[in-house]
Formats: sequence, C-alpha cells, structure tokens
Amino acid sequence: MAVVCNNDKHKVRLLHGANIVTMDPEMSVYMDGVVVIVGNKIEALGKKQIMEDYDVSSIDEIVDLSGRWILPGLVNTHVHTSQQLARGIADDVDLLTWLHERIWPFESNMLEEDSYISTLLCGIELVHSGVTCFAEAGGQHVAGMARAIEELGIRACLTRSTMDSGEGLPEAWAAETLDSSMKVQEELYQRFNGCADGRIRVWFGLRQILNASDDLLIQTKQAADKFKTGIHMHVAEIPFENEWVVKTRAVEHGTVTHLNKLGVLGDNLLAAHCVWVDETEIKKMAAAGVKISHCPAAAMRMLGFAPIKEMLEEGLCVSIGTDGAPSNNRMSLVDEMYLASLINKGKVVYQKGNTDPTLLPAETVLRMATVEGSKAVLLENEIGTLEVGKKADLVVVNPYLWTMLPLHDPISSFVYCMRTENIESVMCNGQWIMRNHKILTIDEEAILLKAQHAAAGVISRSKIQVPGRMKYL
Amino acid sequence: MAVVCNNDKHKVRLLHGANIVTMDPEMSVYMDGVVVIVGNKIEALGKKQIMEDYDVSSIDEIVDLSGRWILPGLVNTHVHTSQQLARGIADDVDLLTWLHERIWPFESNMLEEDSYISTLLCGIELVHSGVTCFAEAGGQHVAGMARAIEELGIRACLTRSTMDSGEGLPEAWAAETLDSSMKVQEELYQRFNGCADGRIRVWFGLRQILNASDDLLIQTKQAADKFKTGIHMHVAEIPFENEWVVKTRAVEHGTVTHLNKLGVLGDNLLAAHCVWVDETEIKKMAAAGVKISHCPAAAMRMLGFAPIKEMLEEGLCVSIGTDGAPSNNRMSLVDEMYLASLINKGKVVYQKGNTDPTLLPAETVLRMATVEGSKAVLLENEIGTLEVGKKADLVVVNPYLWTMLPLHDPISSFVYCMRTENIESVMCNGQWIMRNHKILTIDEEAILLKAQHAAAGVISRSKIQVPGRMKYL
Repeated sequence: MAVVCNNDKHKVRLLHGANIVTMDPEMSVYMDGVVVIVGNKIEALGKKQIMEDYDVSSIDEIVDLSGRWILPGLVNTHVHTSQQLARGIADDVDLLTWLHERIWPFESNMLEEDSYISTLLCGIELVHSGVTCFAEAGGQHVAGMARAIEELGIRACLTRSTMDSGEGLPEAWAAETLDSSMKVQEELYQRFNGCADGRIRVWFGLRQILNASDDLLIQTKQAADKFKTGIHMHVAEIPFENEWVVKTRAVEHGTVTHLNKLGVLGDNLLAAHCVWVDETEIKKMAAAGVKISHCPAAAMRMLGFAPIKEMLEEGLCVSIGTDGAPSNNRMSLVDEMYLASLINKGKVVYQKGNTDPTLLPAETVLRMATVEGSKAVLLENEIGTLEVGKKADLVVVNPYLWTMLPLHDPISSFVYCMRTENIESVMCNGQWIMRNHKILTIDEEAILLKAQHAAAGVISRSKIQVPGRMKYL
Repeated sequence: MAVVCNNDKHKVRLLHGANIVTMDPEMSVYMDGVVVIVGNKIEALGKKQIMEDYDVSSIDEIVDLSGRWILPGLVNTHVHTSQQLARGIADDVDLLTWLHERIWPFESNMLEEDSYISTLLCGIELVHSGVTCFAEAGGQHVAGMARAIEELGIRACLTRSTMDSGEGLPEAWAAETLDSSMKVQEELYQRFNGCADGRIRVWFGLRQILNASDDLLIQTKQAADKFKTGIHMHVAEIPFENEWVVKTRAVEHGTVTHLNKLGVLGDNLLAAHCVWVDETEIKKMAAAGVKISHCPAAAMRMLGFAPIKEMLEEGLCVSIGTDGAPSNNRMSLVDEMYLASLINKGKVVYQKGNTDPTLLPAETVLRMATVEGSKAVLLENEIGTLEVGKKADLVVVNPYLWTMLPLHDPISSFVYCMRTENIESVMCNGQWIMRNHKILTIDEEAILLKAQHAAAGVISRSKIQVPGRMKYL
C-alpha cells in the first residue's frame, strides 16, 4: 500500500457558530466559537473574533454550525475489528464455550477479505459513535484491516493477534512459533506503519499470557521499543489467568506481577481490561507508565469490575474501549462512557456499603474518552484535544433532540444522555468522514449487504451452531 | 376529562411480512407472519396463510412490513414523568444534595402546565424507545400528566406522589395530612381512571417509607384494594432507609419487613428498586405476590445492585424501569434491557469470585420488559404478549442497520444490540403512535421548544444552581 496523495492537503476550512469543548489543559469551552483547519491540522481556534483575521475568499469551506457542539474525536482503545462479523454468535454462554467453541473457530476461518469487510462494518459503527481513532486488539489479517482503514478515513493502531503457545488453539494457529510470529509482525510494521497519510500505525500484539512464552513477551517488548511503537495485550481478565501464572511462572500474584518481573511493563504497553489486579500491581503499572483500556460492558458481561477508582487515584492513564462485538455487543464509545460512569459509581457499594454518586464525574469520563485515549494510543501530541497545531479530528454533536433535552448541564449530558442519534458529523485528519449522519467515505448500504454474506460464509465454514432460544414457526 | 370517542374504533388493519415475536407462553415466533387488528384488539395472528381468510376490500389498512420484526409494546414500570424537565440538574452529586437541594426544590416549583409539558417530553422518549405502557412513580399534577397521556396515545398507570410526614420537605408539601392525601387520591381515581379509551389507570402512591406514617401505609393498601387498583412505592433504596425503619418502627430488618407486618405487601404493590432486601424479605415478597421494578441504571448510579437473580429464583415478578431523568439520565427501556443483562451478569463476581455470562439470558430480559411488565402494572390480561384478544400494543423494529448486523441471534440482538435507532414504528391500543421514527400524535419539535422554556422557568423559580464543570469562554 502506498502513501495516498491527499487532494485536500492544503484546503482551508472554517467552522463557526458551534460551542467548542476543547478538552485542553484549562478545560476551555468556546461558546459560539470558531475553528480554522488547514490541511489536516487546526490552525486557529477561539472566539468568533478570530474570524476577522481571515479573508473569506481564501477559505475553501465555511460551515455554519450554529446550535451544535464540537468535541474532540473520541478514541476507542480496545476494538476487535475482526469480530464485528461475529456479533451475536456467543451470547449468554460460559467463557470456555465463548472462546473455544465460538470465537476461535470463527476467527480462524476468516479470510483476508472477511477481515476487510468486518473492519468496514465495525468502522461504520465507530464513526457513527464519534470515534476517529481506535486501537485494534489483534486480528489475523492486518492487510485486510489496513485496506479498510485507508478507505474509511479514520485513524488506527493495528495489531496482529499473536500467540506462540497455549492449549486448545485452532490447528492453523498452533503452528506458529516465536520466530515466525516476531518476523511477520516486523514485516507488517515495515509495510503498513505510517500508511494512509500517517493514519495507520502498526503495533505489536500479545493475545494474552496463556498464549505467550516468556521469550515472546520479552522479544515483543524489545521490538516495540526498537520501532518506537506500542504493544496491545489482554491483561488480568479472569482469576484463572492469575492462578495459572502463579502456578506456571512462580510469581506471587498474577500476570502484571510477572510482566513486571520480565521488564515488559512500560509506557508503550496498552493493557486491556486489568480487572484482576491488586494494589501492588496497580502501583507497579503506574510507576511504569502503563496505559489501561477499561471496557465496562465487556467487563460487566464476562469478567468482573475493574478497580478503576484505585487506578485513577494512583495516576494511571485509564482510557475506554468497547472490546469486540461478541463481548459487548454494542460497539459504541458513546454508550461506553455512560457505562463507565454507572458501573464505577455503583461498584463502590461493595467496598463501603454505600454508593458514591460523585465518583468518576462526567468531565473525568470525557477525559478518558479523549485526552487519556490519545495517551493510551501514544498519539497525545497529535490528537485527543482541540488545540492549535493538533490534527483536526472532531465530532459535531446536535444535543437539541429528545435524547438530551433539556440541556441544564451540557458536559454531563454528553456522557450520561448522548446517544449515537446525537452524533451528526465527524472529521478525521481534516477530512469530513460523516456529514448529517451519512458516512461519505464508503457506501454503507453496500457494506451491510456484503457483511451479512461474508458472516454467513464464516459461520458455515466454522460450523458454529447458534441456538434459536424460541419456537420459530 | 371525558372518555374520548375513538374514530378508529372499528378499523381493520392487517400487517404482513414481518417476523412476529409473540412472547406467548410457548415463545412462538411467526416468521413472515400476519397480524390482524380490529379496533384496539388483535383479532388474528399467525403465518401468512391466515391472510386467505380475509377479503382484502374489507380491510382499511394493509401494511407490508417485510424485513421488519414485531415485538409486543414494551412496559416501563418506573417513570417519573415530572422529572423529565429536570434532566441534568443533579448529576454527580451525593444523595442528600440530589434530593433536598435539587429534586424537591424543582418538583415543588412545578405548575400543572409544567407537568403536562414534562410528561409530553418524557412520552416522546418513551415512544421512541418502544414503550406503549408505563407506571408513573409519582408526581404532583396528575391532571397535567393525564392530559399529556390522552394526547400521546400511550397507556399509563398514573400516581400522585404522596407523603404525610418526614424531614426536609418543601413548605407546600409539608402541609399535607393523612386525610388530605387520601382524599385527593380518591378524587383523582374517580376523575381519571379509565379515561382516554381506558388507556389511563389511576393508582395510589407512596413516595417512600421515610415520608409515610403507618396509617398512610395501611389506608393506602385498603383504598387500593377497595378500588381494585395498584400501589406504587419506592422500597429499600438505601441502607439508611432500612436502618431508619429498624430504629423507628422496631422491626428486625427494613422497609419490606415492616410493610409485611402492616399487611401492605400484596399482589397490587409495585415496589421500585428493592436494592437492600435480604433473603427473608425476598421470600415474603414472593409469597405476597409483590411486583418488582428493577431500574438498573438508577440503581448503579445511586443505590447499589439489587438481588435480581435471587428474586427470579424465588419466582418474583421482576419488571424493568428507567426511573426519572435526573437519576439515569437516559429514559430508554431499550438501553435498560441491555443494562439489566450486564449488571446482573457482572454482579455475581462479588458472590462467587467469577462471573456467570449465562445469567439472565436474553429471553428472560425480553420477558421482563414485556410479559412481566404487564403483570407489574396489573394488565397481564390485556397487554404484554401478542395474542388473539389482547390489545394491539406493538413495536416494529428494523434490525437491518449497522447497530445490529449481522443478525446471528435475533432474540439476543434485541436485548444486547438494539438501540432506539432500530425502533421504527409503534402502535398502542390499535392506533399508530409512531411511523418511520415520526410521532404522529403530537408535534415533537414544538414540544422540545416548549420544554426548554418551561424547564428554564422552573430552574429560575426554584433557584437551583447547576455547576459549569469547565471554563466557559
């Protein structure tokens, strides 16, 4: 894939009339504000008056966004794009059935074309949810994903699902060795990192500790450091995982303790879930600068309640992810913000016998989905806030609908009331990806049809049986 | 208010092409099914073949719903319509601030016209969420609510918020006595019960035990029994409530134990929340046939995690409610089904150290929002399932959107993926309330404007200050 020549590289766009929630360090909100975008960057931002600095005839596009609010593009830090075609194949089943009888058979029967279509389908949901950047949790066909991301116009940190050991693996995956898995990932990095106008980054992947030798863990860390990129790994998902680590690796607690011992904890590790970590492990992760992806829905449904309050108190970077479609099943960061607030407020009841509705206030949750998300994907210098010099990744919200009115507390309403209905337009890298609820970069209808066809094909090849639940006549 | 003459009383409607999820005792789903509606009732239901029994010229309306699914109208069993105008006034504050400094000042400054507009605004959200019947948790102006319900075209069990004692009450409310509160409710029953073609029922209300004398509790039960209607009460919301009951009423545990002692537990009691109930109390409620309204979002945010699994195991009728806008803040039963599944799956982790993804399967949650909801509002003979002879309350869903595809497991997808975007049309009492996302009975745009104006008025009169959270420039 070649770096695409961007025809809009020098276009000047001026958006005015909207209230702009910048998420900058001062938490500035410009009422009736203006943002000027040149190419893919924000050139100016502020109150209406800055319009006077511009000669209207030199501006390519002027958009009146009166009655709208602008937020930074949301960052979804844990997404299985390959699993989008598998939504609904593993609902209400226990964890072993989920993994061995549904997800692994499905994923291992996907072709590159399936991954391409699955990523497009997932991308549609991400864009409608205001997401302009995401971190892939690891799939089989990075080339398929990259093709989809190039077309969709959003930003992604792509990762290959990597395992060099473990039980119950599908035949095709069991053949993989330490050397082959490192080699293929380095090749993917060389081939795709920086593609699509720099929107694609390639990371190294570790599926989970149950499928990683110590050598794979160590070499992955070395490679990620060498290439100055990130590592995406599922960490401390279930108590069994920690018990297994204690038994097989002779450490006191669990995965995090072991990763620390091997030197794998670092500021380029994005650790997803981290539900079963103790106080010492939280401190170790904080000291090493590890980034957390908190996935509230998947955690509630399958894993438990992560100690997010304790992580925030230790100063850890906590971002938000949706996980994959068969774990959630909504792939909406808008819903996930709402859930992050609810579950972390409610959880405290088990610790002190009373809920604390002041926990994780709305502005904290909004930071998790923007600024902290940008740190988690190692792009805090480019995205996550609306500031001069940053990339123009933004979301236009219309809150004046039945879903959010009255708007007594706009900031809390973006977290607690907002739904995908309110996400009107999305810009990424200075380009409009969606306007008035219509995605401009791809043909949504055509992809929905292709996706259903592709999904049926994978189900048929993998021989997965989904029970009917009711009496179909 | 007079009983309105329904012009459509004898219209014959035939819907065909959709897959019909009946929620009948056999859990029948008619693929490519037909439903025939005469006036406000279902006259026939089944496979395509039943169309042959009808002379097309005798049918007033034939609707092709190919590619759609039909569900019974959803029942939302705990709604504060009066609080819709107050959405966002009390986010991220502690419980005492919530009640004494925000909600009570707001509600006690509402006029009947405000309640009317608030109910219309709330109704818009209910209809878009597929709700055709709801139970009001108790507001000040039942006449205002009734006027809105008549216009909206949905079904409601209306309740006046009733308190004859307690601390910190607004002045206007503190004047109420046992006698005056019983008298005004009986008058409301006489005036509004059965109005709007029978869509309105009037219930008796008990705000909570902290605001009810024993005499009020007993007389309310007697009156509800006499009028063969329901009682709606907030029960066992916070540990303090139980402690207060133990201290002031000399019983062993809490509110439920005391209500049982007074003979107030019965099959016409709809008990909202019931978060803090013990095993004995669950058994007592089950034996008495009490109905539960489980409000997952409000519970997570403010109260804790109710023992729903244990209630279901005891055979209790558990339905689902959204609570009011300042407690939630989404008033969508569609979201609440998703949350009911998530929180009850996740909660078990604290009890056995491991989650159980098989808990509360999708078909159970769908029952809670339909059949169990109809029992909770004492209308199980009229609504809750799609069966011949029942009222034509139904929802037309379009699942073939990016929110729900692929549709490997339709039933679970209605619970775990469906969003309000998928709710296309709604029929209540044989009348179309919404078609293609547009509400037909009222002017949505006009109400949104009126609601913002009315809300600003109440905020101004009640002198509530909502903090800004960020730096507005």
